[in-house]
Amino acid sequence: MRLALAAAAALALSSCATAPAADAPASAPKTMAEIIAASSAAEWRPLDLPNTLVMTLSGGRTAVIELNPTFAPKTTTNILILARQRYFDGLAIVRVQDNFVTQWGDPDGETDHPKSLGAASAKIPAEFFRDRVASPFVKLPDGDGFAPEVGFVGGFPVARNGQSAWLTHCYGMVGAGRNNDPDSGPGNELYVVIGHAPRQLDRNITLVGRVVQGMEHLSALPRGTGPLGFYEQPSQRTAIESVRVAADLPQGGAAGKLEALSTTSASFTAIIEARRNRRDDWYKQPAGHIDLCSVPLPVRTKS
Amino acid sequence: MRLALAAAAALALSSCATAPAADAPASAPKTMAEIIAASSAAEWRPLDLPNTLVMTLSGGRTAVIELNPTFAPKTTTNILILARQRYFDGLAIVRVQDNFVTQWGDPDGETDHPKSLGAASAKIPAEFFRDRVASPFVKLPDGDGFAPEVGFVGGFPVARNGQSAWLTHCYGMVGAGRNNDPDSGPGNELYVVIGHAPRQLDRNITLVGRVVQGMEHLSALPRGTGPLGFYEQPSQRTAIESVRVAADLPQGGAAGKLEALSTTSASFTAIIEARRNRRDDWYKQPAGHIDLCSVPLPVRTKS
Repeated sequence: MRLALAAAAALALSSCATAPAADAPASAPKTMAEIIAASSAAEWRPLDLPNTLVMTLSGGRTAVIELNPTFAPKTTTNILILARQRYFDGLAIVRVQDNFVTQWGDPDGETDHPKSLGAASAKIPAEFFRDRVASPFVKLPDGDGFAPEVGFVGGFPVARNGQSAWLTHCYGMVGAGRNNDPDSGPGNELYVVIGHAPRQLDRNITLVGRVVQGMEHLSALPRGTGPLGFYEQPSQRTAIESVRVAADLPQGGAAGKLEALSTTSASFTAIIEARRNRRDDWYKQPAGHIDLCSVPLPVRTKS
Repeated sequence: MRLALAAAAALALSSCATAPAADAPASAPKTMAEIIAASSAAEWRPLDLPNTLVMTLSGGRTAVIELNPTFAPKTTTNILILARQRYFDGLAIVRVQDNFVTQWGDPDGETDHPKSLGAASAKIPAEFFRDRVASPFVKLPDGDGFAPEVGFVGGFPVARNGQSAWLTHCYGMVGAGRNNDPDSGPGNELYVVIGHAPRQLDRNITLVGRVVQGMEHLSALPRGTGPLGFYEQPSQRTAIESVRVAADLPQGGAAGKLEALSTTSASFTAIIEARRNRRDDWYKQPAGHIDLCSVPLPVRTKS
């Protein structure tokens, strides 16, 4: 007997999903798949191609990363300069720490012959949080131990208090590694969260984007065996073939084919509720709660 | 320049760590590494070898899994019967769904020629939660959106309300896959959490243990491309060479060398506080909070 653990139905990425029958009871509980199938085209947005990176690893594995100029404008700009200089081409994934982060950059960064940052800045002021005016803020109904309010702004998970708002360290979020100085993370060394949300990093380091496709190429890499998960041998690293700005590629490259469900859409709000209380034949005890980092941010291939 | 993102210092597994200098101020904040270095031998416990599995994957990769007869007695017993029959030997990892679970069992389980369960039961009553009497309960100071109280019992993360207590779906926790019937998970198909804690599964499926060593051999496997992350081709599966009860191996095999920090120890309580508010040169804004699934459960090799 094959046991299914049918708990997390994969998001259907098909562009030809069928809407529920029109005579279905309007009050029937809906699953995420049903909500997506019934969503309107206007609820989906293209990726922000001028602020999106297409990263190609050795073997042609591709990850699409949407940057966030609303929360990290200076870091975003610096990364775009670096990408256009082809700074990342030929660099490598240098660190994979289990249940924490995958990190990439210049393996020679701490030697006396680092790759030149060219026209990019070597220091960028910390963008750990911004002022509270970051609306529209789609607030989760549930509380959060780390902040008075959590929700979504423009497709990203966000926390806020009375004064400020900040991106949060959910699975797939991308940040700019730094040393002890707050301004020491110019975006030439990036990391992505590959485990349980390390929310203690919130407001301590600049988050600058999220992986919207190809996360599995970053999360399933061999873990490094050196301190902090750094690889001990150069041969263990995964090479970066290229990092390009999507808007510079024909039709946006891999990013041009994607669209994301708007976090201000009615369907997104419906998904939050459907995931707070799962109602299907498998679930016996709906949770009545959802963690900010468990809310799915649906992405699909355009029809 | 190599940027360190020094936020999560790896747990020092060395058995010869040096205690802090005796003239250090008694009130100085301590990091987890410092607390472990200063812990007493009596604060560490051996693994529960009669209820611990040593799973060896192809290539000799080994994972150690401590089962939990306090919360899942019938499922634990059934798994031990299966292991002693060598039921798992020659089976495979059949599913890896990114940010969710890795699952193993009989690839032919749903065909008409499944591997025999022998003396083990095909149905086990659901052990989704138990009565509240599961003490000593080391309670976290912080709230949790999914339960009135969360903390630790005997080395495992636990939630409870006024009536009952249950294991929680943190990274590395192992459960017994099931179909729609609550009693359809006898432990012949197991999964481990490899992503952000899917706490919505709590009280919906029997959790029966946790991976205490070798998690990286289960979390870094290629993701399956079929529905729910099942592998589409048999060749993509990772073979299981053997699953043994640690107590049946000479000196407990890989499990016999390990010891875990007792969750009732003063050092464990100190670690919780050190992780709620990290105080070192890197952190600028202590979180003042910790998520149940972010509390480390230290394991080390015996000296």
